[in-house]
Amino acid sequence: MSGTTSLPAAEIAKTARQASFTIKSLPGSDRDLALDAIYDALLAFKDDILAANAKDMEAAASLVAEGKLSQSLVKRLDLSRSGKYDDMLQGIKDVRGLEDPVGKTTLATKLDDNLTLHRYTTPIGTLLIIFEARPEVIANISSLAIKSGNAAILKGGKESSYSFAAIADVISEALSSTRIPPGAIQLVQSREAVKELLDQDVYIDLVIPRGGNDLVRYIKDNTKIPVMGHADGLCSTYIHTDADPKIAVDVVVDGKTDYPAACNATETLIVHKDVLESHLPAIAKALQEKGVSIRCDEQSLASLKSAPETTFPTYAKSILQSATEQDFNTEFLDLTIAVKTVDSLPAAVEHINSHSSSHTDAIVTASKDSAEMFCRMVDSAGVYVNASTRFADGFRYGFGTEVGISTNKIHARGPVGLEGLMIYKYVIRGEGHTVGMYGGDGGRKYLHEKIEF
Amino acid sequence: MSGTTSLPAAEIAKTARQASFTIKSLPGSDRDLALDAIYDALLAFKDDILAANAKDMEAAASLVAEGKLSQSLVKRLDLSRSGKYDDMLQGIKDVRGLEDPVGKTTLATKLDDNLTLHRYTTPIGTLLIIFEARPEVIANISSLAIKSGNAAILKGGKESSYSFAAIADVISEALSSTRIPPGAIQLVQSREAVKELLDQDVYIDLVIPRGGNDLVRYIKDNTKIPVMGHADGLCSTYIHTDADPKIAVDVVVDGKTDYPAACNATETLIVHKDVLESHLPAIAKALQEKGVSIRCDEQSLASLKSAPETTFPTYAKSILQSATEQDFNTEFLDLTIAVKTVDSLPAAVEHINSHSSSHTDAIVTASKDSAEMFCRMVDSAGVYVNASTRFADGFRYGFGTEVGISTNKIHARGPVGLEGLMIYKYVIRGEGHTVGMYGGDGGRKYLHEKIEF
Repeated sequence: MSGTTSLPAAEIAKTARQASFTIKSLPGSDRDLALDAIYDALLAFKDDILAANAKDMEAAASLVAEGKLSQSLVKRLDLSRSGKYDDMLQGIKDVRGLEDPVGKTTLATKLDDNLTLHRYTTPIGTLLIIFEARPEVIANISSLAIKSGNAAILKGGKESSYSFAAIADVISEALSSTRIPPGAIQLVQSREAVKELLDQDVYIDLVIPRGGNDLVRYIKDNTKIPVMGHADGLCSTYIHTDADPKIAVDVVVDGKTDYPAACNATETLIVHKDVLESHLPAIAKALQEKGVSIRCDEQSLASLKSAPETTFPTYAKSILQSATEQDFNTEFLDLTIAVKTVDSLPAAVEHINSHSSSHTDAIVTASKDSAEMFCRMVDSAGVYVNASTRFADGFRYGFGTEVGISTNKIHARGPVGLEGLMIYKYVIRGEGHTVGMYGGDGGRKYLHEKIEF
Repeated sequence: MSGTTSLPAAEIAKTARQASFTIKSLPGSDRDLALDAIYDALLAFKDDILAANAKDMEAAASLVAEGKLSQSLVKRLDLSRSGKYDDMLQGIKDVRGLEDPVGKTTLATKLDDNLTLHRYTTPIGTLLIIFEARPEVIANISSLAIKSGNAAILKGGKESSYSFAAIADVISEALSSTRIPPGAIQLVQSREAVKELLDQDVYIDLVIPRGGNDLVRYIKDNTKIPVMGHADGLCSTYIHTDADPKIAVDVVVDGKTDYPAACNATETLIVHKDVLESHLPAIAKALQEKGVSIRCDEQSLASLKSAPETTFPTYAKSILQSATEQDFNTEFLDLTIAVKTVDSLPAAVEHINSHSSSHTDAIVTASKDSAEMFCRMVDSAGVYVNASTRFADGFRYGFGTEVGISTNKIHARGPVGLEGLMIYKYVIRGEGHTVGMYGGDGGRKYLHEKIEF
């Protein structure tokens, strides 16, 4: 039995919208039972799924050898990477354990006698999620969609087609025994479907792309449906004058090397000129020891080149590279970092606000005031003090798992968990109240009293 | 001195973005002082502004006479309409009186020892507001933008050009004595500017159109910037089997006639077949007495035509019209209503979910269960029980004033006040924490403990 659908795009979207009305009205207990079913099935069929994933990895390896695929994409594809499958399963459990987000009261006002206003959280409706590699996304997204009462259409990339088909089969089969209507989670594999699905703005409420820059830009340019996500993940870490040297090394090395293919990896190191001599050599050395290529601006290059042999040896100097202006706008997604020198904290903020992708930016400083100024002035979804940019992640934030990381300025920003899949509706309950009863001379007045909830 | 700018669009947008960083960092007290200044100035120059508005009204009247402008647009243009100017002023005072929305903590989590996560509300950044008639919008939007710490570019329509210029002059002059940077509120009158402003997605974060269907559709089709608002406002009121007859009449008449040009006016009356004879004649009669043209579907037409002379007289019958299918997809914005007969509550919901614009829909019923079922199943921003659809309004909801009414499924829905102009950022404060410290065998575990705030 195949878990993927090959209906025409309009039909898929329409079916999803119909199913959204059903899943929206199911009690939380039914949605939780569906998550249990998915968890059990993915656990039971782990070997089959990993075998399918191995086929994708094999095909990808040949493409890399031919220079047709980047190494970083392959890393994202690998479900057998230590802990990844377990993390995926744990993510489903974590989401199940979260409070039911549907129908929560977020505002209640007494407008007048026997006239009340309530605001209740509701599912957005129908989501379209398009992703490239990262086959575990299908499990993440399916659980978040089900928990939040949304219908979702999932479209995987060709690089993960075996993994996708295998997981899709397991999930579809698991859901067939639950009260979730089949249209609520639809898994699409046909490549042609994407463009047509992006045209279904009548039925689809939100597109969530999970993938590289090109994919996200293509989607943003080709749909009227709101898009939640991020194209670039150009994160930076700034070393202030009073940074603790060990913290500077730890945070930069972790930010750059813990998982370089991730969107929250540090791509630019910003260094205050006053600590070029005192702090940069140790950071650069530690980075090089992890295999990182360092591309320096003129000032940092000159400083490192003239560092004493004992702090930064000749060999280390010889492999330094010069940065171009373009390097400060580049998400390397690899073991490469650009170094920028600034002469003040506001200059660091200015560099970040004009070059970073408003994803996550960090400062290393011992001063609370400098930290707070940085946090207030940097216009990014995440602003960190003495911590690695790699913390930008729904699981680490305690959201269970994430639907993606958003650099949008509206709706949801940063790692997006359940809350980002919710909207609300206003309900007014009256007893024949009309607007004509209010205002003017002798008309009634609104009370606007807060109701406790 | 002119309050409007004629810089090139890219320059306007860039200036606004720069100013957004400044206004974002001003304390709430400075933003409140700016609102006082605008209030005082608009009060002092009321006569001048009404004189300018009269010129717009005169020009509009000629256009209506020539059939080039609709009567409903003219109604929206009229600032001298009873209470409208005072409402505008009161709106500024109400907004000023609201709690400062900037920098509020909305989430706080202890991730680990000495590692905390906080979420703070922040202004979205730069708003572009484009409106047609309704010159009071400039005061509403300016106050909401300033209170929320956003920069705003406002573009008025040609129908309100005199009013717009007069209000723009007064507001610019008032702000020049405050700490709000001039770029934070820019008033654009050039017609050519719109298309170019819509291209500035690098600098502008959100477009808010305030105007008719055509304007909103044009904007949605011509920008990559997220758009918040509504094209149609096709609201309906459903009369259930057990509706109180008087409430049915009151709510429908108010919904249709209180202000027919408004987006929250009732456009479709849905009637359960069981109350065609008992309830519809009185409703229809009351509507006709207010000058409303009634377009009935076959069943309701037949029922009204066969009503006894005492409940629905011959003359009333003679002016009934037949509805076409198109009438149920039409926002009349005028004294016209379409009547649809259904044979169940779910059929009413089905009609609403497929024909209404997800703006505001009401039920008249005496049963709590029917009311709750309707509220749960209708997928609209506002769902009302025994109350007029005309309540859909930021002032009536207690938001002070509104930036618009949204039928979007993300970010903000229904009447949008200050909250809809806010987003948030996440701040992590650590002491050199790295992601590499966590997970695996012997690694640290996240605490994810809620911090009270």
